[in-house]
Amino acid sequence: MSENTNKLSTDPYKGVRDFYPEDQSAENYIFNIWRKTCESFGYLEYNASPLEPSELYKAKSGEEIVNEQTYSFLDRGGREVTLRPEMTPTVARMIAGRKRELSMPVRWFSIPNMFRYERPQRGRLREHFQLNCDIFGLDSIYADIEIIRLAYQIMINFGAKESDFEVRLSNRTLLNKTLADIGLSAEQSHDFQKLLDRKKKIDNFNDEAERICGRKIEWKLEADEEMELLISELKKAGISNVKFDDTIVRGFDYYTGTVFEIYDTSPQNSRALFGGGRYDELLSLFGNDKVSAIGFGMGDVTARDFLETREILPKYTSSTKVYIGTFSKDCVEDADTLAKILRSKNVNVAIDYTGRKIVDQIKKADKEKINFFIAIGEQEMNTKTYNVKNLFTGEENICSLAEIEEFAERIFSNL
Amino acid sequence: MSENTNKLSTDPYKGVRDFYPEDQSAENYIFNIWRKTCESFGYLEYNASPLEPSELYKAKSGEEIVNEQTYSFLDRGGREVTLRPEMTPTVARMIAGRKRELSMPVRWFSIPNMFRYERPQRGRLREHFQLNCDIFGLDSIYADIEIIRLAYQIMINFGAKESDFEVRLSNRTLLNKTLADIGLSAEQSHDFQKLLDRKKKIDNFNDEAERICGRKIEWKLEADEEMELLISELKKAGISNVKFDDTIVRGFDYYTGTVFEIYDTSPQNSRALFGGGRYDELLSLFGNDKVSAIGFGMGDVTARDFLETREILPKYTSSTKVYIGTFSKDCVEDADTLAKILRSKNVNVAIDYTGRKIVDQIKKADKEKINFFIAIGEQEMNTKTYNVKNLFTGEENICSLAEIEEFAERIFSNL
Repeated sequence: MSENTNKLSTDPYKGVRDFYPEDQSAENYIFNIWRKTCESFGYLEYNASPLEPSELYKAKSGEEIVNEQTYSFLDRGGREVTLRPEMTPTVARMIAGRKRELSMPVRWFSIPNMFRYERPQRGRLREHFQLNCDIFGLDSIYADIEIIRLAYQIMINFGAKESDFEVRLSNRTLLNKTLADIGLSAEQSHDFQKLLDRKKKIDNFNDEAERICGRKIEWKLEADEEMELLISELKKAGISNVKFDDTIVRGFDYYTGTVFEIYDTSPQNSRALFGGGRYDELLSLFGNDKVSAIGFGMGDVTARDFLETREILPKYTSSTKVYIGTFSKDCVEDADTLAKILRSKNVNVAIDYTGRKIVDQIKKADKEKINFFIAIGEQEMNTKTYNVKNLFTGEENICSLAEIEEFAERIFSNL
Repeated sequence: MSENTNKLSTDPYKGVRDFYPEDQSAENYIFNIWRKTCESFGYLEYNASPLEPSELYKAKSGEEIVNEQTYSFLDRGGREVTLRPEMTPTVARMIAGRKRELSMPVRWFSIPNMFRYERPQRGRLREHFQLNCDIFGLDSIYADIEIIRLAYQIMINFGAKESDFEVRLSNRTLLNKTLADIGLSAEQSHDFQKLLDRKKKIDNFNDEAERICGRKIEWKLEADEEMELLISELKKAGISNVKFDDTIVRGFDYYTGTVFEIYDTSPQNSRALFGGGRYDELLSLFGNDKVSAIGFGMGDVTARDFLETREILPKYTSSTKVYIGTFSKDCVEDADTLAKILRSKNVNVAIDYTGRKIVDQIKKADKEKINFFIAIGEQEMNTKTYNVKNLFTGEENICSLAEIEEFAERIFSNL
């Protein structure tokens, strides 16, 4: 490109996002709630590279995903590489790789980015971030209860009310058994479950069901004892918005037991926000004995949509809390000293070194949503007294240099 | 793969890392110091996708990097895509894309992962994370001072002593002018700078210099007034370990003014830990007017190596602070109640639901480096009194349920 005069485009690659500071701030808000909630339940953070050997996805993901929707290519050494489209195969690989050293049960979470080659549309980008939480090696109802409580708690910690969402449960074992009982073959059962997964979105469910089964069927799934127990335990734990839903399937083929969704109850946007389930067989692909596993994933795009719709995403303010303006170059040393004091009190401070008019320096701080402004001129240098202006409220406080430290602790520590 | 019985490999893709919780904890420690220090100087976090249009790298990076060392491929729509090998072209693209809306100067940082196809070796993986800090639109020595102070402060905040490292400076403009003055052509000057960049690593510098220049040269670069001023200002700001170094070049072709390195002074490991410089021309590629820019990048692998060598990487402990053991299923409800109280005080708690022997539950907490253990049995359920055992010190504290809240605030808030 250097030999011609074409301008380079400033657009990102199609279907992915640039995160300017305001966007990144929203991402960080979401990631922090995810991280804090998972850690509060004793989950440990892990991560892995988005580059994975392609064979990892050839075994157990839904077929559509492997064949058409992945970014896959040959590296310069001829290896088949895929940009991970989901995290579960990766975490299964990591657990299987250290099964002997790890002390079960293992509670893990991660916030990886993942990639799918698909037509970009609202909520379906080519790259998104997704919280993944899983518990391995605890083969009891307590794992199901805990993972669902964790999903619920994330919603609560985002400031959602119980009326904003529902926890909807079903069970793949129950589903498989019921479909076998009504006489469906394994293939018919698989196709029927794919159909059931889309039931809420389509209006010809009965016709499609008849096509798959070769006869009219009256579809009904009855909750069994295990399901009743799970629901009653969740209610006992304080989750009142939980219910059995016989249309819950979840997309991936690897689920084996409980499957669940956190469902948006908004009439304008009724849909699954996220979900997960039990996948006890996945680790056997690595030659290990069966390892019990249950988990879920929650995407950043869906999360942000929900927070914005419900108006519970905090308004953006800058991570920089104080902007120090300088009347001239002579003030720079004093500005640096003041900044050093504030920074030692964990206050984030930027200094304006441009030499432009003070009014323009205030405008800059204001535009960037910085909370406090302190101007340094001859008077401030002589008196060592500073006017700390709160740009959000208009309030002003006069502080001596000695008082600045105390002021920092008093005012800024709550920011 | 599903039709044969081969086991899937549990290895990650060649040359990239899996981050098990202990590794991720070290990464998070490094990322947190980076983030906190950058924010304390008023830098705002941004991010972008690792997928970039390949043309972004065809213009101004060092040639070796574009041609042989990138992961580049065609997507299913025939677009040339590259996994970013460095962040500077991305941030330049983003700044150029919103130059009108952004209020200059802009202080930004990011902690992206980046990819290079190269033979894996110590400190040179195919994927690593790198802090990137830049200031745009401040065309004065204050930008150079601030960015170098920020780099220095990161080292200090990692717990490094001034004797552990040096700040070494040079200047590309000075270098270009001096090489032109001694009669080198543009091409000779370019080759000579590439050689100079390797001077400390090779022993035939003079022969190679003669080959490039076509004659013997006595290489010497004199600091000019601007350089002297920069050094004296940095010393005034409290950085005593700063010096001019006429071998500093930095690899990328796009640098235009100040270039600098943070150099490890360890005799066993004397090398640049990281560095950066001024690149005032890069944004013109996007058709904008010149935008002043200076920044640096610091990799996670180098950072971790340094911290480990200097023994200043904190010892791993679990983010989970309390492990609640249960004698039987009957204790689960009490364990859940206790956990809920502790979590409401921001204490991270895991519960053992396995039903195994209490001694094995303690072993698990101990192995995972969890600080506190509380067992719940019949006695605890009857008396509502709990023995909080500090597994790091052996100390034990008896607490009533009422005291637990206060204990949590007193003990755990300092963790």
